[in-house]
Amino acid sequence: MSAEKCFAKGSAAPGPVPNGHIRLYSMRFCPFAQRARLVLSAKGIKHDVVNINLKDKPEWFLEMNPLGLVPTMETLAGELIYESPIICDYLDEFYPEKKLLPSSPFGKAQQKMTLEHFSKIVPLFYKISMGKKSGDDVSVQEAELKNRLSKLNEDLVNKKTKFFGGDSITMIDYMMWPWFERLEIFQLKHCLDSTPDLKKWAELMLEDVAVKATMHSVDTHKAFGKTYAEGKPNFDYGL
Amino acid sequence: MSAEKCFAKGSAAPGPVPNGHIRLYSMRFCPFAQRARLVLSAKGIKHDVVNINLKDKPEWFLEMNPLGLVPTMETLAGELIYESPIICDYLDEFYPEKKLLPSSPFGKAQQKMTLEHFSKIVPLFYKISMGKKSGDDVSVQEAELKNRLSKLNEDLVNKKTKFFGGDSITMIDYMMWPWFERLEIFQLKHCLDSTPDLKKWAELMLEDVAVKATMHSVDTHKAFGKTYAEGKPNFDYGL
Repeated sequence: MSAEKCFAKGSAAPGPVPNGHIRLYSMRFCPFAQRARLVLSAKGIKHDVVNINLKDKPEWFLEMNPLGLVPTMETLAGELIYESPIICDYLDEFYPEKKLLPSSPFGKAQQKMTLEHFSKIVPLFYKISMGKKSGDDVSVQEAELKNRLSKLNEDLVNKKTKFFGGDSITMIDYMMWPWFERLEIFQLKHCLDSTPDLKKWAELMLEDVAVKATMHSVDTHKAFGKTYAEGKPNFDYGL
Repeated sequence: MSAEKCFAKGSAAPGPVPNGHIRLYSMRFCPFAQRARLVLSAKGIKHDVVNINLKDKPEWFLEMNPLGLVPTMETLAGELIYESPIICDYLDEFYPEKKLLPSSPFGKAQQKMTLEHFSKIVPLFYKISMGKKSGDDVSVQEAELKNRLSKLNEDLVNKKTKFFGGDSITMIDYMMWPWFERLEIFQLKHCLDSTPDLKKWAELMLEDVAVKATMHSVDTHKAFGKTYAEGKPNFDYGL
């Protein structure tokens, strides 16, 4: 299923996408790429994974996608798709089994509005985590984070559902999950103490098969993070 | 069709959304709101428009949508939708007549990737325009803008089509148009001199019925822009 070790500059290009498959260009620790891995796994889509050394990208990869982004998806027909929400919407529409997006136009719009809200949370995780490491005062950012997380909590409370799109997992849950998996690495786990419904959501997410299939342990995240912080990311850590 | 004059703080709320209609909360000169107006017009959707004084928002508007954003869409059922691309996708899916998005999943993904690229162009228009007014050196930003516009030009050249989704106008054309309508106001019209296919596209767009129905003349844009720059935007200019 997955060519695990990453391809770097100088490497030979992988062969063509295998018949009946779709290919994901990924990096094992990238939260954006994990969104695509979650959707591929949840929908049971036949795929292979080509991991990319993001510090030293293969020439053939940059030739194929000059933006050099992961995740990038390559179809059997050679079509390229990048940007994680675009990839995930594509996968959900192209593979009709086990739909992750709601069928109603307003249901879809609601998920996209939540994703838009969440996209303002993502940079806060990094700002706060890095700020703390440098000894900066990050109280303003932490207050903003808590305020934004409490809005997510409110969503769950108002909807009276376990997940953001109902009582089973839908697309929006997978779009947000990768950063909650990393809360301990960001040293921000305490932020969930004031948002009990969101905390419960995160606990339930941990029981999901696709989440289990794509996640790394806290120790592995920490060990990779250390190599990353030292400027020498070990993309193959743990293999 | 449209309650033209804007509603400000202290105003009485407009009545309920008329039967068979959908309501757009808008501002007559907002390019993001214009995206929704273009789609409403192109698809012939029955709607009313409630213009909002963005400097002095009505209490009832902030109560309804605490983010206070325009465009916001309100359905007959009282559902609220905001963020212009989410609104436009909703309209295209809910009203099946004259589809503006391609039916194929990859066609949709392509339009979203172009929109993502374009979303990096939008802030450049404002940075360059404001920088020039303050006498700053904006050559770096202008070079980036030209580079990004040339990629859009390349898209048209590679596709050999008049518009970005084929030989007739589709969603992505409407998503980008409002800023091209304002190129002269940004004093950036010369940027199209090195991108002839994009220039031709902009000329063709001017012939479209929905574009004509939603646009303002350069003089009107300039006059509104002047009141805006002076800190006293006249949202009702020209009425």
